This record gives sequence, C-alpha cells and structure tokens, in this order.
Amino acid sequence: VNGDDRGVLILAGGRGERFWPWSTPSRPKQLLPLAGGGRSLLAATVERARRLVKPERIAIVTAADLVGVIEHECPGIAALGEPMARNTAPAIAAAMAYLPDVTTWAVLPADHLIDDVDAFARDLGRGFDLAARDPVLVTIGVSPTGPETNFGYIERGARLADGVHRVARFKEKPERALAEQWAADGRHRWNAGIFVWRRSVFMDALEAGRPELARVFRGFAPAGGAAGWTRRLAEVYPAVESISVDYAVLEHAPNTIVIDASFDWDDLGSWGAWARRQPRDPRGNVLFGDVVVEDCDGCVVVGEGGTAAAIGLRDMVVVHSNGATLSCRLDRSEHVLKVSAALRARSAR
Amino acid sequence: VNGDDRGVLILAGGRGERFWPWSTPSRPKQLLPLAGGGRSLLAATVERARRLVKPERIAIVTAADLVGVIEHECPGIAALGEPMARNTAPAIAAAMAYLPDVTTWAVLPADHLIDDVDAFARDLGRGFDLAARDPVLVTIGVSPTGPETNFGYIERGARLADGVHRVARFKEKPERALAEQWAADGRHRWNAGIFVWRRSVFMDALEAGRPELARVFRGFAPAGGAAGWTRRLAEVYPAVESISVDYAVLEHAPNTIVIDASFDWDDLGSWGAWARRQPRDPRGNVLFGDVVVEDCDGCVVVGEGGTAAAIGLRDMVVVHSNGATLSCRLDRSEHVLKVSAALRARSAR
Repeated sequence: VNGDDRGVLILAGGRGERFWPWSTPSRPKQLLPLAGGGRSLLAATVERARRLVKPERIAIVTAADLVGVIEHECPGIAALGEPMARNTAPAIAAAMAYLPDVTTWAVLPADHLIDDVDAFARDLGRGFDLAARDPVLVTIGVSPTGPETNFGYIERGARLADGVHRVARFKEKPERALAEQWAADGRHRWNAGIFVWRRSVFMDALEAGRPELARVFRGFAPAGGAAGWTRRLAEVYPAVESISVDYAVLEHAPNTIVIDASFDWDDLGSWGAWARRQPRDPRGNVLFGDVVVEDCDGCVVVGEGGTAAAIGLRDMVVVHSNGATLSCRLDRSEHVLKVSAALRARSAR
Repeated sequence: VNGDDRGVLILAGGRGERFWPWSTPSRPKQLLPLAGGGRSLLAATVERARRLVKPERIAIVTAADLVGVIEHECPGIAALGEPMARNTAPAIAAAMAYLPDVTTWAVLPADHLIDDVDAFARDLGRGFDLAARDPVLVTIGVSPTGPETNFGYIERGARLADGVHRVARFKEKPERALAEQWAADGRHRWNAGIFVWRRSVFMDALEAGRPELARVFRGFAPAGGAAGWTRRLAEVYPAVESISVDYAVLEHAPNTIVIDASFDWDDLGSWGAWARRQPRDPRGNVLFGDVVVEDCDGCVVVGEGGTAAAIGLRDMVVVHSNGATLSCRLDRSEHVLKVSAALRARSAR
C-alpha cells in the first residue's frame, strides 16, 4: 500500500439550521467560524484531510448553490455541486465516481469538531490500511464521555484487533435512560459518521441494500470536471431515492467494523455543544464579534454585522446576525430548530 | 378667561437612550410607538395638547436634526429646532417667545405615558385657570403607587384648595428607604414634569434664579417662523448656560403650587416600566413586530427590521432593531444606559 489510491470525500451538503441566525441557507454551519481561530469547520476538515492525502485527491460534495463560496473557502480542492438534495447514500456513490482512480475512500462530515489532528490522522491511517486489506466498511467509534441523547451509537461485536471490533449493531439516538446505560457499559461508541472503504466494497454493499441505486452509480462515469459531474448528475438524480448511507448500506451490511477513536470529537449539534468547547472569559462567557456584555455568566454572545448586548444574563445564548436576533437558554438551544423551521414555513407562504 | 391666550409647549429634545437599540439618536424614545396602538409618545402628547388648545397654539421644541421627522409625525404643529442642546430652562424661555400672543403656557414632556385623556384635560384646565388668576408656577403631582426610586418627588405644603397645595420642596430621586417613606406618608407626589404658568411669571422667576438667562430671553423676539427662530437662537445659544428648569427656576421660586393629578402617569424610564403598561399575551409576554416566541413568560420581545426569536426565557427583554440586539433581564433594563453610553464612547473614538 503506497497511499496513491487513497482519497477523502467530505460531505458538506448540510444546511445547519441549528445555528440560526448565525447560519443561513447560503452560509450553513460548516462555513461558520466554529472551529476556533476564525476557521470554518469545513476548512478545518480539509486541513485534516490534507494530513491523509494529496489535495487533488480530496473532493467536497455539497449543494450546487454553495460551490462558489466553498471554492473560495477551500482553494485548490474540488467542490462537487449536487443539483438537488438526495441525502448521503446517493451523494457518496456519485462523488466517489468523480475520481475513478481512487480505490479507497475516507468519508468525513464537514461540520464536526476534532481538535487532535495527529490522533485523527493515526486512526484514519489505520482505517485506510484495514479497508485496503479486507473487504470491510470501516467506521470510527468515539468513547462516550456522557449519556448523550443526540448522537447515534455503535454497539461493538467481536474483537478483531486492539481497538478494532466488528459492529454488532448501529443504534439511533437513545432516550436518556438508555444513553446512561450505553455510556457506562463499555460496549457502545458514538457514531462519528466517519467511514473508510474501497469503492468496490461500498458498491457491493449498496447493491445488497439498494440495488436500484447501485445500478445507477455503477455506470456513473462523468466527464468534464466538477461542472460535468453536476450536469451528468442532474440527469440521473431526479429519479434517485433520497436515503442516508446508514439506512441504505451500513445497517444491513455484515462486514462493518469499528475502530476506537483516539481523538476527541463533537458534532456540535447545538449552541450549547459549541460553547462547551470554546475558550471563555473569566466569567465563563464565550464572546464572538461585536458584543457588549455587562454582568453575565456562562453565556454565548455573538455579534456579526451589528452589536449584540447582553445584560445580567446567566447560561444564555444571544446572537445578532444576518438581520435577526436569537435569545435562548443554553440548555434549550436545540429548540432553535423549531424557530428556524417556523421561519422557513413563514417565508414559504 | 376665554382661553385664546393659552398655548402648549411640548419638550421633545430628549435622546431616549434607555430604549436602545429600538431608540436611536435619529429616532429617540418620544418617536417610538410606545403609546399603544402604534402611536408614538409624541403623537399621543400632541393629541392631549389638542384637547387643551388650538393646533396653531401648540409648539414642539426639539433638536434641529429631528425637526423633519417631527413635522412628518405631527403635521400642522410648529416644530422648533434648537441648534444645540441647552437643557430645559433656555428651551422653554426661547420657545415661549415663538408665540408672543400666548400669555399662559402649559409645558409638557413629549415622552411620558398618560392614558386618561379626559382627566388630563380636566387637571390641565384647572392649572390654566390657576395660572391665569394668580402669579404662580403650577406643577402637577402624581400620587405615588409605590416606592419609585426613578422619579423626582414634590413635597406638598399649605393647602390652597381641594387638591391644590403650595410646594414645600422639590426632591431628587430618592434611595429606596426614603422612597418607601414618601410613597406612604401622603404628603409627597411624583413630579410629572408638567407645568403651567404665565410667560411673565416664568420670566420673573427666571430673573430671580438666573438673571443672565432672563436678560437674553426677555429681548428674544424672533421673526421668520420656525426657521427664523432657529437662526436667531443660533446667535444667542452658544453663550447661554445649559441648565434645567428645575434648577434655574422651580427650586428657588416661592410661588410654586402643585395640583394633584387625577390621571395615571409614567415616564417610561426603562423597558420594564413600559412593559408594565402594555397588553400581554396569555403567558404575560409583550410582543411587538417580527417575533418568534417559544416557551417564554413575562418577556418583552421586539423585532423591527428583522426577526427576534426568544426561547425558554422568563422576565427578559429581547430586542432586534436598527442592526443591533439587546438581551437583558427586565429588572436590569435600566442598565441599558450603560450599554448605549459604551457604544457612544466607542463610536466617538
């Protein structure tokens, strides 16, 4: 194995409404400077990918309307624009065809936070080696640090090597009691949504789970660069089923394995999740941009394109961005989805 | 007394920073729709004034840069623009010279809330009668409904008639303990900042308190309408002392009397004060404009020019307006002044 047949696919199609109003459809979560040091999560993900493969072997798959801003954010990296959203299984199958000489792919979400880049590169290198050697679908499992109800879980099966197990079962986000059990029993890992596989192994598993999808993408051989890829996809995508890679492939496949992650990880599913991983001022506030804070503790205050002023608050998130305001208890910040959904419904009327 | 010698002067020079970010220097508190029914406090004040005198006997004195918007807000009413701010004593002395045939003036703040217009008209009519008959400076005193520390107080002296007393003393905003005593003893009234007097009586009192000011404004006889008034004032105002009517006139004058108000009154000194007098939703929230509210109680949420979303809050004020955000505990809303002062200092750098 010399690594020349390896590539990295970054999934950057999400709209990230959980960070409304900082995030918008045209600047979703992965493009916000949530990674620290003013970097976007996507830019940080590309940096991690460059530790694994050459830049010309990295592809970002995203919505067509985000290609321009992503090319600006990640110069020199191919940005593939989907003409419409079809969830992750079709996106992965189609994007892997863009670089046909890459035989082994790592698939990374664009909007997660991983600080320990060395540990990440080590674990992914191990994933590449395992995927090149055996016909397996490799997943990365993160040791739970608490009873998290907002992550999917992986139950480990038989041990294959140190820190490598068969997957016994993929599990949906649990209720609190179940999450407490899984976080404590040592057999469960958080599903980081990171995968490594040979394209051929993936296509065989897709064939088993969704034969009609596999038929479309086995023959998918677009020419004409990224623009040609989008044009070609526009012909086949309308008739394609919208389905996640978890449902279409992983949950049915008998050859899934899980590597224990040695890196920290968070999917930043809420303002609160982000805040827990940010540097704070002496009173525990996370401050970003144009803010005025008076007698606040444990708050997140973000002002972009205008001043956000917070007075006398505790454990709140206050955001001024994109011509809107959010003021929310941090422990309710997952309810932001309700608001962004309500606003979407209102603007659709 | 046929009333033809009566006029109303409305003081509308304030900048109202307590309602930041809804209020701005170009749209201060008196121009915000705080009076209910979408009306500004100034428009409501003009309506009350029209119950007392003909429109051509009403004058609004304000900052020169607000004249345009005030003429738009209050068509048919003279708006006098001060070329610079010199506090209330010079403003009143100068503005009374604008209508020389008015001999008896009521002076009203533009930014207070008074709902009972009939009672107001009755009390002011009584004030006009007293001021026309006797050489007195009439003030209106509101019966305290609680130990308010943000109002000035008037201590009543000898009784002159039913509900009319000499003023024993004008008193500054008290500490809490003193406010509790004054609110309970029956001898104190809130100073509503509403006055009635003959111009000649006022000028004599000004002569006694600030002879140099009286000298300037006895001879002040501007021609050329409102624009001429401003031009003429620009010649004398730079050398004029900036001083309130309370310091320059009322606190020294022996001939001040106080009429007990039979109307409700509030100077709306904070978001909280305004909220207490607004209609509320079933959970006690005051909602104005473009807002989304989820699981909130007792909050004020204002969205103007963009959405303000509030989630899981209690007793808070959340405002999105003029490209800025405020999120503040209602019982701390007086601290908004600190923020607007900090922002003013910042923009002055």
